[in-house]
Amino acid sequence: MTSSKGDVASNRPLRLGVAGLGTVGAGLAILLRDNADIITARAGRPIEITAVAARDRNRDRGIDLSALTWHTNAVDLANDPGVDVVVELIGGAEGTARALVESALTAGKAVVTANKALLAIHGDALARLSARHNAPLLFEAAVAGGIPAIKTVREGLAADRLLSIGGILNGTCNYILTAMRETGRDFADVLAEAQELGYAEADPSTDVDGIDAAHKLTILASLAFGHPVEFDSVHVEGIRSIGAHDLSFARALGYRIKLLGLARRSERGVEARVAPCLVPETAPIAQVDGVFNAVIAEGTFVGRLMVEGRGAGAGPTATAVAADLIDVARGNTVPVWGTDIRTLKSVRSRPASEWRGAFYLRLTVADRAGVIADITAILRDCGVSLSSMIQHPSARQGDDVPLVLVTHPTKESAMQAALERIAALDVVSTAPVLIRIEAF
Amino acid sequence: MTSSKGDVASNRPLRLGVAGLGTVGAGLAILLRDNADIITARAGRPIEITAVAARDRNRDRGIDLSALTWHTNAVDLANDPGVDVVVELIGGAEGTARALVESALTAGKAVVTANKALLAIHGDALARLSARHNAPLLFEAAVAGGIPAIKTVREGLAADRLLSIGGILNGTCNYILTAMRETGRDFADVLAEAQELGYAEADPSTDVDGIDAAHKLTILASLAFGHPVEFDSVHVEGIRSIGAHDLSFARALGYRIKLLGLARRSERGVEARVAPCLVPETAPIAQVDGVFNAVIAEGTFVGRLMVEGRGAGAGPTATAVAADLIDVARGNTVPVWGTDIRTLKSVRSRPASEWRGAFYLRLTVADRAGVIADITAILRDCGVSLSSMIQHPSARQGDDVPLVLVTHPTKESAMQAALERIAALDVVSTAPVLIRIEAF
Repeated sequence: MTSSKGDVASNRPLRLGVAGLGTVGAGLAILLRDNADIITARAGRPIEITAVAARDRNRDRGIDLSALTWHTNAVDLANDPGVDVVVELIGGAEGTARALVESALTAGKAVVTANKALLAIHGDALARLSARHNAPLLFEAAVAGGIPAIKTVREGLAADRLLSIGGILNGTCNYILTAMRETGRDFADVLAEAQELGYAEADPSTDVDGIDAAHKLTILASLAFGHPVEFDSVHVEGIRSIGAHDLSFARALGYRIKLLGLARRSERGVEARVAPCLVPETAPIAQVDGVFNAVIAEGTFVGRLMVEGRGAGAGPTATAVAADLIDVARGNTVPVWGTDIRTLKSVRSRPASEWRGAFYLRLTVADRAGVIADITAILRDCGVSLSSMIQHPSARQGDDVPLVLVTHPTKESAMQAALERIAALDVVSTAPVLIRIEAF
Repeated sequence: MTSSKGDVASNRPLRLGVAGLGTVGAGLAILLRDNADIITARAGRPIEITAVAARDRNRDRGIDLSALTWHTNAVDLANDPGVDVVVELIGGAEGTARALVESALTAGKAVVTANKALLAIHGDALARLSARHNAPLLFEAAVAGGIPAIKTVREGLAADRLLSIGGILNGTCNYILTAMRETGRDFADVLAEAQELGYAEADPSTDVDGIDAAHKLTILASLAFGHPVEFDSVHVEGIRSIGAHDLSFARALGYRIKLLGLARRSERGVEARVAPCLVPETAPIAQVDGVFNAVIAEGTFVGRLMVEGRGAGAGPTATAVAADLIDVARGNTVPVWGTDIRTLKSVRSRPASEWRGAFYLRLTVADRAGVIADITAILRDCGVSLSSMIQHPSARQGDDVPLVLVTHPTKESAMQAALERIAALDVVSTAPVLIRIEAF
């Protein structure tokens, strides 16, 4: 293990091997150069990149890295004697990234990574490897970019029993939903624009289908509840089904639509899901717009806390990586999940059928007598109580009109049963859109 | 020094001596009892109160502390061999609190405190004492209650060069201003209600005159800029002069009024002030209402970050104290101001006369021809450019009417010169109200 109080006292530079020189890797190199005075003072010693691994040695990254040791195979950084800490910025839950992190930890080297997929899927095994080899593994940059979400939950709120954790964890989706609300345009249109602006990938599915947010939620929930949460137990819905209509209906009802990752713990287990939600427009999280992220935690003693900031980008993400490096340099590290992995027990996930909440349901129905009676009868038969209903005849499409129903809190299983029967009605055309309502 | 990596490994309980058993002290005892499982797991060892010092042994504090060692003189906790860490919850910059903290640090014991006045006024000397005796001094609870503001700035943003720090740092003032806006009532009326509800002290001056916020701002600015900031260099204004009129005029102009502590660093020095400000009603900080606090930091790489949560109360504040105790138990402490005090240089404070910004000016003027011409001529002569002007004739009081002027950004010295001449006009009755506008 390279980080110990003894090393800190030595003032010897902390030598980094950086794997991956994309936006964040290059941003880190620039940050370490531009803020070297501050970082040295706060770390108690200089932090320097000595070796790198990246595909293209000749790309212009805005900083001259030619004097460093270049490795063709990133995994070789783990055994480079000139490297104290491995910084993994390759990404992906498998392949080189995983091999490098495992090799570095096994070699007793501290690892700092921004890799949310790796931590979400293999975090438990990596925590054991980290503990066995006394090699710290830090990942502040994996969740919410420049927001110190990991440190806030793992250390700032360490003394409290958290009841819930989550928030707006994907800037691409938040940008798209914000633009849809502000312009009245539809999902596909705004996505195309986001891709042009570089806010969405050419293949946007990891973002818009909620996977990225689910990775981050898995990490936050594992930290918050002190139990490893299984990535596969997280219920995931994306934002592709949200239409321009939904944004305007939500507004009429006093809500905004946000893709939220939310995990709650009760005596009956942990409920974790990523899904678009209606949130009251007066709630602080409703005001977090564009590419910004927000993390909300609620504890029994501390109450509710919200942090918002830039969830992505070279600068913010690099500051998170460098904050971890300063902790390593100081020797101030903690176990991966905040407590000794050997004492952790896994926790029961509550299946979706057990959840409770209020729902927004948008249907496209034939504009004829008796339709509403049929639908409300099904809801009644399934034990779902209606809170309000709105229609905009002006939004007619051919013979069809949109109909929006808002329910009182009900069991998810009851709502799904009603939805299945409603969707099967002849008078209901196109797939219904069901969105949960979060009170906050 | 009681905290070291070696001690952590030992699993020996960390033994606390708690001075002061008011709301926060009793809250801490309850938190340590109720969350003992979590706290032990995260600290790697139990954290237990073994000794206390408080005036009244027999008061009902909601928890039985009779089995502990009781000290009549709190300072004796520093030398109690059964105490590893002193928790100072007495308060006040001088007297017993200061003597206890100095004695404990000198004895090489870690100190955890919620004492903002002590840190703001004697932080520099205490940082030297802490360094000299290798005794950590932690004070998360001193700023913004349950919000981990100190950790966010000192560790989460450690790699970035911060340009500004501050926010809503006093819950009493925020409660009063929120209630004034929502009810249209005047300051004195709402203050009386806040006193009845326990949100304001019988002597409210430390809160409503901005002193408490200035203590917190001094601490945040010292951490953010890596330089000790002199408490006396902070410009302080409270909220007593804000009237119900100002809240309604602000609303008409698209603003809300918040008591903000704000410190900014530029090449010309640090500008630090506590004062009521107009903030755009769409800014996230404008939405932070009631007793909630918010801390905003802005860095060159990280951009803007905001944390909001409960800034006071037994539960939130106790979680902050206990988070510090977990850090001590883990041996994960840092120097008081985040860097070695011996390397810190003091920083120039920019005098108020050098500041720039836009202003809101409310005058009470005689309702007669030529008044506005006289006032605008003075502004022009002083080089202050006007952005807008509003009057509500319906708010007439006798022959007088309120007149509100909003300026473009200008030098504070120019505005003050104009204000002095305007206030001296015969047609201006009652003292003008000048409020700075913060764009965010």
